Amino acid sequence: MTKEFLQVLEIEIARMEQGKQPVELYEPIQYLMALGGKRIRPVMCLMAYSLFRDDWKSQVKPALSIEVFHNFTLMHDDIMDKAPLRRGKQTVHEKWNDNIAILSGDVMLVEAYQFLNQIEGLSLVQFQHLLERFSRTAAEVCEGQQWDMNFEERNDVQLAEYIEMIRLKTSVLVGFSMEMGGLLAQVELDIANQMYQIGEFVGLGFQLKDDLLDVYGDPEKFGKQVGGDILANKKTYLLIRSLELAQGEMQQKLSYWLNQKQFNATEKVKAVTEIYTQLGLREEVEMQIQSYFDRAFAGMEALNLPQEKKNTLLRFMAGLVDREV
Amino acid sequence: MTKEFLQVLEIEIARMEQGKQPVELYEPIQYLMALGGKRIRPVMCLMAYSLFRDDWKSQVKPALSIEVFHNFTLMHDDIMDKAPLRRGKQTVHEKWNDNIAILSGDVMLVEAYQFLNQIEGLSLVQFQHLLERFSRTAAEVCEGQQWDMNFEERNDVQLAEYIEMIRLKTSVLVGFSMEMGGLLAQVELDIANQMYQIGEFVGLGFQLKDDLLDVYGDPEKFGKQVGGDILANKKTYLLIRSLELAQGEMQQKLSYWLNQKQFNATEKVKAVTEIYTQLGLREEVEMQIQSYFDRAFAGMEALNLPQEKKNTLLRFMAGLVDREV
Repeated sequence: MTKEFLQVLEIEIARMEQGKQPVELYEPIQYLMALGGKRIRPVMCLMAYSLFRDDWKSQVKPALSIEVFHNFTLMHDDIMDKAPLRRGKQTVHEKWNDNIAILSGDVMLVEAYQFLNQIEGLSLVQFQHLLERFSRTAAEVCEGQQWDMNFEERNDVQLAEYIEMIRLKTSVLVGFSMEMGGLLAQVELDIANQMYQIGEFVGLGFQLKDDLLDVYGDPEKFGKQVGGDILANKKTYLLIRSLELAQGEMQQKLSYWLNQKQFNATEKVKAVTEIYTQLGLREEVEMQIQSYFDRAFAGMEALNLPQEKKNTLLRFMAGLVDREV
Repeated sequence: MTKEFLQVLEIEIARMEQGKQPVELYEPIQYLMALGGKRIRPVMCLMAYSLFRDDWKSQVKPALSIEVFHNFTLMHDDIMDKAPLRRGKQTVHEKWNDNIAILSGDVMLVEAYQFLNQIEGLSLVQFQHLLERFSRTAAEVCEGQQWDMNFEERNDVQLAEYIEMIRLKTSVLVGFSMEMGGLLAQVELDIANQMYQIGEFVGLGFQLKDDLLDVYGDPEKFGKQVGGDILANKKTYLLIRSLELAQGEMQQKLSYWLNQKQFNATEKVKAVTEIYTQLGLREEVEMQIQSYFDRAFAGMEALNLPQEKKNTLLRFMAGLVDREV
């Protein structure tokens, strides 16, 4: 069932930049959008819409606004993080240059609004409400990225701050994807809000799963270097918690690896992973992930809709819990 | 009269980022917006609106969307151009860093749409038309910047290409400012289109005036280094035309200064300015400017409105022709 949504989305994505000039501006957009990805956000938007209405194919362009926005943030984040690879391929600023990645990203943000502007059938008030929610969410994602960069300079980041950062950087957009599905189907605002909450929990669980896969993922399936966060001393849930919990010899060992300027990458990843494992953090994060998804599923349960309407979205959400990539 | 528009705009600008977090993201926006500038675009938008309706104060927030968008382009262009100064002060990427300038700029583009979303009283169709025109214009401005960057790598830029580049980079937004004033006043689309044409001519004249002031401006009044374009071998109207026209000794002299890696800045500016002057390019560009403004004034003439309605805007436009800064 997910396949059907994906097929329709991919057709529209392939069409996006056809014939646009100058090519230096539009080729990088086509390139990044074609790198693939799970298209989680527009799929969830269309599945959320399908809870209430059947003609989801009429909402493909509005739903794509979220995917284009998401890819815009990837293009600019990759510049800021000096990331060489994205989905195993060169990032845009590596393949072209920083200036092109800045400017192509800017146009993508404009294009996201152009897709959003293809919404039909709402009243002006409904449309402007949706537009304001989109913009507010977009600003929050940027705020999350700024907090993330701020945290790189700090050594006293608290777990609650980290959770708030990933909420802004990742979860609000997943929340909005669900909310937008509801708003496009013209549900009441309190239902749209319930949808948002479900998505926000999914987003939190999804991001923690990312943190976990970065350390414990199967290198064969994962597609990027396992242990990348460890090598970069990235302040993830795992690192923040181990800084709280590690004592004595373990604390010294962790501190050693964090401060070592020159090191063997495999050794560092192995040593820090061991600390995480010994502190029981793998299980702790898995429980956290389960807890966020439980709340998302409870939110789905609470929606007053026939079970068979919910099944597609529920199956999709279950796939996100179990994913290995 | 312009003063009254400016006062109301400045109050709203001063309020923009109050209390927003994280400060690393929002302070640079406040800083850039507070550097001043002539606020030509929102002023023209409100004056255009005032041709048809009296309550222009109700349109301040929508009009500001254009100013915020314009400043967003300045923030990102300054990164791309590695510009150290803007209006005599440090640019955002210099005062903070590139990453902050990228991300703050991104939020500004979102904020521009948030201001636009505060339009009231239009139908959904009218609003979506205005939104699409805004987005299309925004994309064109990015296209103009990309052509500008492409031209830096080329030595065979034709005058017509240059004019098309400045049309995209500068004039379409001035055109849209006028058009938006009309659309907010709910004029017919052909009138809105006339407004756009007037603004586009103003924008072309305005940009050529910029090129001219960069060479012939009064250093006391101009506020930035006279001859900056010459030092950077920037492909302006003046340089493109002198490459077309210069022959013999003059051609050799021009070529010498364009290719010299090490040089005395004052000498280079003086020598290249002399070439421009000897080729009669100062007069040629002045005639071009006059011709664009003439067409803008003819467009105003053609608007079927009482003369006293037009006077404020006409005086404002006349000020742009005569400006020394």
